[in-house]
Amino acid sequence: MAALFRGSRNLLQRCNKQHVDLALVCSRSMASKTPVGFIGLGNMGSPMAKNLLRHGYPVIATDVFPESCKELQDEGAQILDSPAEVADKADRIITMLPSSPNVIEVYTGPNGILKKVKKGTLLIDSSTIDPSVSKEMALAAEKMGAVFMDAPVSGGVGAASLAKLTFMVGGVEEEYTAAQELLTCMGANVVYCGQVGTGQAAKICNNMLLAIGMIGTAETMNLGIRLGLDPKLLAQILNMSSGRCWSSDSYNPVPGVMEGVPSGNNYQGGFGTTLMAKDLGLAQHTATNTKTPVPLGSLAHQIYRVMCARGYANKDFSSVFQFLREQEEEPEKKGD
Amino acid sequence: MAALFRGSRNLLQRCNKQHVDLALVCSRSMASKTPVGFIGLGNMGSPMAKNLLRHGYPVIATDVFPESCKELQDEGAQILDSPAEVADKADRIITMLPSSPNVIEVYTGPNGILKKVKKGTLLIDSSTIDPSVSKEMALAAEKMGAVFMDAPVSGGVGAASLAKLTFMVGGVEEEYTAAQELLTCMGANVVYCGQVGTGQAAKICNNMLLAIGMIGTAETMNLGIRLGLDPKLLAQILNMSSGRCWSSDSYNPVPGVMEGVPSGNNYQGGFGTTLMAKDLGLAQHTATNTKTPVPLGSLAHQIYRVMCARGYANKDFSSVFQFLREQEEEPEKKGD
Amino acid sequence: MAALFRGSRNLLQRCNKQHVDLALVCSRSMASKTPVGFIGLGNMGSPMAKNLLRHGYPVIATDVFPESCKELQDEGAQILDSPAEVADKADRIITMLPSSPNVIEVYTGPNGILKKVKKGTLLIDSSTIDPSVSKEMALAAEKMGAVFMDAPVSGGVGAASLAKLTFMVGGVEEEYTAAQELLTCMGANVVYCGQVGTGQAAKICNNMLLAIGMIGTAETMNLGIRLGLDPKLLAQILNMSSGRCWSSDSYNPVPGVMEGVPSGNNYQGGFGTTLMAKDLGLAQHTATNTKTPVPLGSLAHQIYRVMCARGYANKDFSSVFQFLREQEEEPEKKGD
Amino acid sequence: MAALFRGSRNLLQRCNKQHVDLALVCSRSMASKTPVGFIGLGNMGSPMAKNLLRHGYPVIATDVFPESCKELQDEGAQILDSPAEVADKADRIITMLPSSPNVIEVYTGPNGILKKVKKGTLLIDSSTIDPSVSKEMALAAEKMGAVFMDAPVSGGVGAASLAKLTFMVGGVEEEYTAAQELLTCMGANVVYCGQVGTGQAAKICNNMLLAIGMIGTAETMNLGIRLGLDPKLLAQILNMSSGRCWSSDSYNPVPGVMEGVPSGNNYQGGFGTTLMAKDLGLAQHTATNTKTPVPLGSLAHQIYRVMCARGYANKDFSSVFQFLREQEEEPEKKGD
Repeated sequence: MAALFRGSRNLLQRCNKQHVDLALVCSRSMASKTPVGFIGLGNMGSPMAKNLLRHGYPVIATDVFPESCKELQDEGAQILDSPAEVADKADRIITMLPSSPNVIEVYTGPNGILKKVKKGTLLIDSSTIDPSVSKEMALAAEKMGAVFMDAPVSGGVGAASLAKLTFMVGGVEEEYTAAQELLTCMGANVVYCGQVGTGQAAKICNNMLLAIGMIGTAETMNLGIRLGLDPKLLAQILNMSSGRCWSSDSYNPVPGVMEGVPSGNNYQGGFGTTLMAKDLGLAQHTATNTKTPVPLGSLAHQIYRVMCARGYANKDFSSVFQFLREQEEEPEKKGD
Repeated sequence: MAALFRGSRNLLQRCNKQHVDLALVCSRSMASKTPVGFIGLGNMGSPMAKNLLRHGYPVIATDVFPESCKELQDEGAQILDSPAEVADKADRIITMLPSSPNVIEVYTGPNGILKKVKKGTLLIDSSTIDPSVSKEMALAAEKMGAVFMDAPVSGGVGAASLAKLTFMVGGVEEEYTAAQELLTCMGANVVYCGQVGTGQAAKICNNMLLAIGMIGTAETMNLGIRLGLDPKLLAQILNMSSGRCWSSDSYNPVPGVMEGVPSGNNYQGGFGTTLMAKDLGLAQHTATNTKTPVPLGSLAHQIYRVMCARGYANKDFSSVFQFLREQEEEPEKKGD
Repeated sequence: MAALFRGSRNLLQRCNKQHVDLALVCSRSMASKTPVGFIGLGNMGSPMAKNLLRHGYPVIATDVFPESCKELQDEGAQILDSPAEVADKADRIITMLPSSPNVIEVYTGPNGILKKVKKGTLLIDSSTIDPSVSKEMALAAEKMGAVFMDAPVSGGVGAASLAKLTFMVGGVEEEYTAAQELLTCMGANVVYCGQVGTGQAAKICNNMLLAIGMIGTAETMNLGIRLGLDPKLLAQILNMSSGRCWSSDSYNPVPGVMEGVPSGNNYQGGFGTTLMAKDLGLAQHTATNTKTPVPLGSLAHQIYRVMCARGYANKDFSSVFQFLREQEEEPEKKGD
Repeated sequence: MAALFRGSRNLLQRCNKQHVDLALVCSRSMASKTPVGFIGLGNMGSPMAKNLLRHGYPVIATDVFPESCKELQDEGAQILDSPAEVADKADRIITMLPSSPNVIEVYTGPNGILKKVKKGTLLIDSSTIDPSVSKEMALAAEKMGAVFMDAPVSGGVGAASLAKLTFMVGGVEEEYTAAQELLTCMGANVVYCGQVGTGQAAKICNNMLLAIGMIGTAETMNLGIRLGLDPKLLAQILNMSSGRCWSSDSYNPVPGVMEGVPSGNNYQGGFGTTLMAKDLGLAQHTATNTKTPVPLGSLAHQIYRVMCARGYANKDFSSVFQFLREQEEEPEKKGD
């Protein structure tokens, strides 16, 4: 209650300070079931938009691929031709796009959102992109009287369909409640991380540590097996010791150690090596830009980059175990 | 029951095969409170030997440093002049030594255990050394009719004093019960890992993954802080996500994030960088010898090696966070 | 002769295609001693501009720091207030700026060159920046009817003063002769690398390999010394063998091995660690953007990044030898 | 002259000090064409022994493979059954073996050289092994009144056949002349490096820097090509700049840049990846043992180790260029 009150007061102050039309903001924040714009209907965006429809929100959507639009139209969404047109009709818009250049185009391009955005509109970008681009978009939105928040997700297509995503949200704290209202329709966890860009930062940080833990687990399991340890026993020992990590206890990369994970299914499904390489590239960019040393994160990036070039692009990222292992036929034997 | 029976039969076979006096083995295995030899009374060995005394075992000990011997003598141990003399008096001997060369000397040197070891003696080495040296020692012991097991520990001086160590044991399965009897006096967990050398392998693997997780956590926390995230919040997000690891949730390297860990005490106490560098050197040796690629483990080794050269040798290994952070005075600013 | 003819014909075609006023281009290309614009009068830009004055070119310059402008004014240059004003007066302009954002500002900012650039103007950027930014600038210039070339330099302040720089030039081949005319006043070597951005690419590639060679040489020399080799002898052996590289034979990082290099002068002067870290950051950006694996280049970047944070920012980049060596007082000795 | 005199005086002192029969030493040093022992008749040893025969030295040889012995016997060598028997007949013995354990066996095993070595015998080991093993062998030889020198080679099978090898020699300086007499029959360069083990150290150091330079060149060329540079032009630019190294100017890994190197012949011939991985393993061992940080050397080792596991074991080590490049079919395209 106190927190809510504080939130309202801050909202008031911010609104005055930024010369935003308070009436508009408030009507948007409190309104329920007014139309929500959705831009980007790919593997992730499509099930996310459907979950909004399921919660009774009218959805006004657009995408560059007509077939994606058609599918959502059949579910009841209204389809428009461009982000600008969506911005003209909706005062809450969610974007879910592949990479930074797409986000820049969708927001600031000739037919972009900001061409027709209304004052007080809430813009939520769930793409995983460079946090510095999120900050640029937030500044551009602010100039038009709109509010931009970054809210990248963790969880894949399955979690998107089941509304089990985790959202990491960055932006002005006063708008968080309004964002949360929509995001909880599409995810199980919504975490407020701080100022604009910190949602991206949290996601990038998590995935960098995830990659390091996964490669480390793969190396360690492989070394232990070579030294005569049973892989299941080794996993048990690690998991009750200081070597424990998510990759060792919840997503073990060695076939046969755990059930229900990609290593047990020839590394099909899961989180693709290409996507991990992309996220590590973002981590590398932000580390370079902030002059932060990330030696293991950087090497993890290079390893996933080589894997993409060696035929592992579409396998789950735990296939690094397979990549590091000796091939069946050991041509090395002849050479030494 | 079946397992026990199988065990007994195998024991019989092994004893016959190796021309060991079965009566001796059995009497030793079942006997309690006959003297236990202890060689190596350093920071770890001394409290371990005291815990044996506390459990009522007569201890016959030796060490190259007279003052270490004196201290244990005051607690009731009998002190002899050399490993050979200890071997002459005890048919269960525990060794706790700094490194592979010490182990080789204590077992196979001119006054070493094997000079006077009795048939059927159980030799337990709790040093952390190269598993290939453990295997050599086991072979040499077998030639003398003795049994060698490797049982390195995890846990530091504090855990040694409180008998809270974890032992990872490698060696013939039939002797495991006899070893367990003694080890449970000194530790809270005793894990059987497989054939000789696998205790070392398990310890080395765990510590390699620990080092990777720690450096990865330090990099990630540092990057997140630079990107504007609150360190406590970032730790929370990681710990409920796939970036979670022991170093993030139980031993966080960022001052102020957790209580009761070395990062909160200027990296005093804990597990020293030098010791981590030593263990990573063992991991590197075994990986090189088995031709196993360990890219992150190898880089972690190099980072701890540089830290030893840059003044971090005696700080806890979580001080890698401090090592990677920008120094207070930022001379870089002037240069660019 | 044939090449020249081909060049002229292509020039004609290009001019027609791009609706550039041919007359203007030709007059500029052939003219000598008409004014040259120069933007960015820092440590490098200032001596470069002076060399143009020495060759009899009138120079019209600007810089954000008035004192830099004053100094060049005393040498005979005309000083204007902004890049836009310089563009209004000169049809050949050289820019020498610290980083990509500065280049973007100077070319496309509110008072930028492109606000008043004349058709047919030749724009030469000698900054070291991301090749993708060079390409952006070239596109923006082309829209205004101007021609942009990237021409980053190798060689430091000394080489700039002595007109001994090497220029690596990217851009349309037809304009290369015109660029060369000016660049030879400031450098000893001018190399045509290909389309726009390839000058930057060549420089970035060279410096990445340079960094790898330098750290490799430092590691190798240090290891050899530890193994009992005399450093001068080791350098000789490497330099007549396959380990030979520029860092081992022309810029050896070990004090006492060579004369006249920074390692002999406490790593003062030379090419600063901060600048190398910056160039490696560019290499990392371009590698990430083109999905190219650069494992050693990436680790070299991280090592120079850590060095910047550990007090080596302003030392010559060969100080990595000092960074990797054991410190005088060896605290490690106590800990093991 | 002075140097020679100093050498002779030292020799005298050393002989007296070590109670070696001076007469024997001198007769051996001055004698020519007395029998030379040769142990290890593999791909390298066999042509080396033949070159001794060609120079008129009677050769007494042995090897574990009868067919290797047969071949040399046909060339005129006398074949004996064991290293011990060779030691009984020859007072100058050369050994050329695959790895440290072989050297230990041939020198100190039950039928090893030291079982029957004569006082004053000169033992030259041309194997590439851990320098610490060389030192052990030297100590063991000294106890028997013999002299051990390490003299590893650079150059492959071709250089061995043509007597174009380079020998890097470690051992007491007084014996260097005697060693040189034999080694010049088999090689074009003989370099004295210092005390025992420094020959190995020099070789290991050179090959570590070579590996770093090669991978660095491969990364750099690949990045440059991706950025639009012509590979031949890029190689020219590097080779006239500070990026220059042996791998860029004499053994370029990019097909088509140079003639007469393995990259032009599908990476056949040359220096195999497995052998490079072995040498880097030695470098890693010595670095770990001397607590020397070698971050790039260590990563180079891991890269060649992964390459061995990925099918590159028998290709020339410059095939790292191929390993790092995108595969023809780019499955990555689909995934992003």
